[in-house]
Amino acid sequence: MTASEQFRVQEESDAYWRVVFENPPVNLIDPDTVEQLADLVTRIESAPELTVVVFESANPDYFMAHWDFLSDRERVAGMAIGPTGLPAYVDNFIRLSRVPPLTISSIHGRVRAAGSEFVLATDIRFVGDRAVLGQFEVGVGSVPGGGAMARLARLVGRGRALEILLGADDVPAARAAEYGYVNRVVPDAELDAFVDGFARRVAGFDRTAVRTTKHLVDAGSLPHSNDEFAAGMKAFFQTSGRPENADRVKRLFSLGLQQPDGVERDLGRRLTE
Amino acid sequence: MTASEQFRVQEESDAYWRVVFENPPVNLIDPDTVEQLADLVTRIESAPELTVVVFESANPDYFMAHWDFLSDRERVAGMAIGPTGLPAYVDNFIRLSRVPPLTISSIHGRVRAAGSEFVLATDIRFVGDRAVLGQFEVGVGSVPGGGAMARLARLVGRGRALEILLGADDVPAARAAEYGYVNRVVPDAELDAFVDGFARRVAGFDRTAVRTTKHLVDAGSLPHSNDEFAAGMKAFFQTSGRPENADRVKRLFSLGLQQPDGVERDLGRRLTE
Amino acid sequence: MTASEQFRVQEESDAYWRVVFENPPVNLIDPDTVEQLADLVTRIESAPELTVVVFESANPDYFMAHWDFLSDRERVAGMAIGPTGLPAYVDNFIRLSRVPPLTISSIHGRVRAAGSEFVLATDIRFVGDRAVLGQFEVGVGSVPGGGAMARLARLVGRGRALEILLGADDVPAARAAEYGYVNRVVPDAELDAFVDGFARRVAGFDRTAVRTTKHLVDAGSLPHSNDEFAAGMKAFFQTSGRPENADRVKRLFSLGLQQPDGVERDLGRRLTE
Repeated sequence: MTASEQFRVQEESDAYWRVVFENPPVNLIDPDTVEQLADLVTRIESAPELTVVVFESANPDYFMAHWDFLSDRERVAGMAIGPTGLPAYVDNFIRLSRVPPLTISSIHGRVRAAGSEFVLATDIRFVGDRAVLGQFEVGVGSVPGGGAMARLARLVGRGRALEILLGADDVPAARAAEYGYVNRVVPDAELDAFVDGFARRVAGFDRTAVRTTKHLVDAGSLPHSNDEFAAGMKAFFQTSGRPENADRVKRLFSLGLQQPDGVERDLGRRLTE
Repeated sequence: MTASEQFRVQEESDAYWRVVFENPPVNLIDPDTVEQLADLVTRIESAPELTVVVFESANPDYFMAHWDFLSDRERVAGMAIGPTGLPAYVDNFIRLSRVPPLTISSIHGRVRAAGSEFVLATDIRFVGDRAVLGQFEVGVGSVPGGGAMARLARLVGRGRALEILLGADDVPAARAAEYGYVNRVVPDAELDAFVDGFARRVAGFDRTAVRTTKHLVDAGSLPHSNDEFAAGMKAFFQTSGRPENADRVKRLFSLGLQQPDGVERDLGRRLTE
Repeated sequence: MTASEQFRVQEESDAYWRVVFENPPVNLIDPDTVEQLADLVTRIESAPELTVVVFESANPDYFMAHWDFLSDRERVAGMAIGPTGLPAYVDNFIRLSRVPPLTISSIHGRVRAAGSEFVLATDIRFVGDRAVLGQFEVGVGSVPGGGAMARLARLVGRGRALEILLGADDVPAARAAEYGYVNRVVPDAELDAFVDGFARRVAGFDRTAVRTTKHLVDAGSLPHSNDEFAAGMKAFFQTSGRPENADRVKRLFSLGLQQPDGVERDLGRRLTE
């Protein structure tokens, strides 16, 4: 893939866009993703008629695997500072959570770590019944940097947020719905039609009513400042890539990390096998 | 009904009141309701022995349908300012959520939009298994004005609050419980006895313990100021009744809106048919 | 039991401690418990390698029954002031909720009132399928003093928190999970192995990642000041032991309160029989 192609925007209408993410082989989030997402968020912010955006994956097994552990570290360290004053990685997610239109993640397959932080930054998460979510960063020695602590604490409550974050295990669709991590589970075969129907319904409503109502939900559901996000991003930079955890990541690569048919299939369990 | 009869108070004892709402044919909330509710809230605030209040409907199919779209607009625009400094419509709900005794909504049938905002302003929602809740305002071009954004965001989390508010669809009892919109579902035939038993139990407890414990829950569960409510009320006045959405409401009236056997039965689905 | 033996610490490793609580016959919390818990929390705060602590009960029927109604009232009134500036009873729970390692309550049997406040002060609650939780204080005329209002409001939402606190009834395991009062239910026979496996998994992770991630969850899930806890503690002292409720407690003692085979088995129901 060239740098400009990871997010493919299909403008179904002025009011309804579908965005299909594709970064083979397992939809990793890498520095290109971060740059392209920054542009995409700006484009969404700037579309005056837009009422609803659906995010999908071109890969039915991986919505977004996680951050690319093989990323150029210098490029990451030099990541652009976004409008919030924070590095683009978390800046994207903060801005995404506040775009005027409704955003929906339609999740088939696995979405973990940075991928989970992406879907937590969208407004609604509808998932297929074989979807798997999770935040495994602690299992490889890192603090999640893209807002997982702030968002899960508010969405699922303290006890379940700590179980997800510190257990670092896979969360199957049914448990994710039980915990409130996702909105609801739909049979995999019906998910696309269900989400498209929901999105078209909202797209048909008055744009001002949708955007204003969404904006007024923010006060009771988003952190009042970006301090929590800044703290998480800082902790990520301080903890990731430390030599004492290098063997954990090395072992996972020996088992096929970042490849479709290895340890990624069952990462939660195999993290500690 | 004359203006004074929509809320019928049955004082089971000094500690336990049942309030039965009746405004045929579908229990709309209209300007009379607003004025009478203001008086009722004051009466509840002033009853020193009161420990628990149960709200019921005289109509098993409609707990409270929604705001009366045919209300005299001048009368609404001139609505009294309540003790919070806000128009009586939302002032009632803010004060209701802070009355000293425990308040319980015992819900048979449909409760949507302003009706949903009423039950969200009570402390506990017990529902029959055929109950249906929802906030369909966005579907007719309005922002909800009575606190739905502030209360749902805190009760069901951001993702599900946005699904309920922007999807504007019916929420059946089982999903409402799964999402935390209501406390729990009870078979319709058992609901009245269950709620009466629960209320009598609480009414038998020490009034000071009940009232003080309730008051101490407020800090962790209600907005710290009325700003969110003020913003919602303002947005309602700015968005409702705009000419660009007149056809949406007109179509619904042609299908029997505000009548028991028409579109009200299945409003969520028929909003976009 | 002598005063020093209620909490038995089993150091499985530097990273993983199991703490077994035993105060026969029903694991009451008494002034000795409060003093010993203060020491235990300090010991946990001071263990630099500790990553996870599991709390268990030596009694499979009673995790922690509740506060000992026969405690020496002068000793309680003179309870030490802890580091938070509040009496040790609530100070313990505030400090426990903020210790650096992850804390897990592994709950068999009944845990009510002060016992419920203890487990709410730990991070995660895993429960057996026959576990029973509850806050029955209001049913004997007291406001809960150890943080129940602040913690339940944030964990289960306003409606369900008020149902639990003012209904003062038993909450069986399945409903506790449905409401978010506990993380999840595990068959009783599997609970110990499940919790041990979860704890060993977390104990094997990088300590800094675990502790930092936990700390960053606090901002979105704990009260920002101790004011709510101070208010609850004050209300407890003002309401508990009032003569107008003496008969309620006396009746329960006549039915076997604080004994394993009497009213404790089914306290929620029998509170109002």
